[in-house]
Amino acid sequence: MQMGASVGFIGLGAMGEPMARSLRRAGWRVSASVHRNRAAMERLADDGVLELTDPASVAAACDLVITCVPDAPQVEEVLFGPRGVAAGFADRASSAPGAIVIDMSTISPIASRAFAARLGASKVAFLDAPVSGGPVRAASGTLTIMVGGDPGTFDAARPVLEAMGTPTLVGPIGMGTTVKLVNQLIIASVMIANVEALTFAREAGADLSAVCSVIATATGSNYVLEQWLPKTWLAGTFQGGFALDLLRKDLNAALETARAMTLALPASGLAYQLYTARSREGDGALDYSAIARTYERHD
Amino acid sequence: MQMGASVGFIGLGAMGEPMARSLRRAGWRVSASVHRNRAAMERLADDGVLELTDPASVAAACDLVITCVPDAPQVEEVLFGPRGVAAGFADRASSAPGAIVIDMSTISPIASRAFAARLGASKVAFLDAPVSGGPVRAASGTLTIMVGGDPGTFDAARPVLEAMGTPTLVGPIGMGTTVKLVNQLIIASVMIANVEALTFAREAGADLSAVCSVIATATGSNYVLEQWLPKTWLAGTFQGGFALDLLRKDLNAALETARAMTLALPASGLAYQLYTARSREGDGALDYSAIARTYERHD
Repeated sequence: MQMGASVGFIGLGAMGEPMARSLRRAGWRVSASVHRNRAAMERLADDGVLELTDPASVAAACDLVITCVPDAPQVEEVLFGPRGVAAGFADRASSAPGAIVIDMSTISPIASRAFAARLGASKVAFLDAPVSGGPVRAASGTLTIMVGGDPGTFDAARPVLEAMGTPTLVGPIGMGTTVKLVNQLIIASVMIANVEALTFAREAGADLSAVCSVIATATGSNYVLEQWLPKTWLAGTFQGGFALDLLRKDLNAALETARAMTLALPASGLAYQLYTARSREGDGALDYSAIARTYERHD
Repeated sequence: MQMGASVGFIGLGAMGEPMARSLRRAGWRVSASVHRNRAAMERLADDGVLELTDPASVAAACDLVITCVPDAPQVEEVLFGPRGVAAGFADRASSAPGAIVIDMSTISPIASRAFAARLGASKVAFLDAPVSGGPVRAASGTLTIMVGGDPGTFDAARPVLEAMGTPTLVGPIGMGTTVKLVNQLIIASVMIANVEALTFAREAGADLSAVCSVIATATGSNYVLEQWLPKTWLAGTFQGGFALDLLRKDLNAALETARAMTLALPASGLAYQLYTARSREGDGALDYSAIARTYERHD
């Protein structure tokens, strides 16, 4: 993509909004359509993002369209619905040569490959490019971006992706979402490991800040403990961060993919069950460190 | 302790041997007695470590004695057996004013406090000072050392501890072992999280080295993945490292301590069961990354 080209962005949620803003900051023209996040669209309009009526209109105006929505059914609706991206590309006078869809949602690799195949039939290229880092790194344009697709498409999309973080091509279509699910499997269990260990420490009378300082230099050192928990549970808040129900959705995608491979993941399966029990207690919209509430004492 | 003083060291295993060598390298005179590790004693003798006949003889020669043995029963035997450290201190003409025992084993804080109380009755001070970092960091003298005890004893022992790594006083007696068990609870589950996620990636056809590089920049980043697995499972070896059965012992100590607090740790409980099943398959002496063998395909 040439600088100055127009980039379409669909999905202005907790991640999408700051990612679209990073694109603007890097000098891209950005067009968006809004379905649920009216307030985000108004904030982005102040930053110069152009509002269009629907995904088809966005595709009609942009050779590259980014989708960043909660799950595979929303990706399907945005891409293939009646006023979806595929319809918008098809409506163009030219056949939109070089059109690219980058799906930055976290969905199963099985779904990524299916969407890529359907777009490919209309000569639209596809990258699955989910991200890691949360809203803070989305805002600073320093996300980790795991990309699946062919090298030519990756090279064409790279300047756009670099506005939002550090993209790495990890393999063919479906491998970006695969590697993202690998990350989600890790953080799901690492969060619970930290919460169980720190609850143990607190109950034993330890000073949690001293414990965290020491563990950061020991073999237990991990990103969730050192970078995530000080902004969430350990700061006394479960607002912002990464919604527990979205992690449940990612774990479900990973466990479904594992099921298709006849692969047992007992610790990840238990993690899914623990987060699900927490969600049932009403905490699904909170940061996933809210799993700590499961370990609280009530007497 | 003044430089030039003689330090006693009991327990010349995979950790104790390089730790004793670090003491020598830093200029301390070191006396040891050997029970099981004859070959280690001979290597250390070449480095100038003096061999004495038993723990009592070591205590008779040194004002500060370090113990680094597998578990609480071995600590008890070394300290309070017929020719143990306590007997050696008691035999001295003077009452060994300022004598200190530093137990660097990983045992339960309940046991640490009991041993401290028994030694205290004879005016022998005690620190529980377990370590983290494995044999590699033991050899380089860069261990993380988590110390429980009173500040005066810690200050007296600090020059000795600094020869082996970075000591941090984390609280009163028993808090060193508490914080060490916090670390062990974390690594037990983090190892399994990494193994489940990387097995998922491998089965899905991903390139593991690319996956590890990307995860290292993402929220799943952790020490075990980046520093431990490349030397063990991912290097195709389970030799060296940290014996799976020692981790089971540490988990057992943590879960017993949790039981005494009526604290449920479901993920840690599952981790203990998975490592135990692996040990039953004959892998207890291997590095704990051998848990990966549970996830191998056999067809």
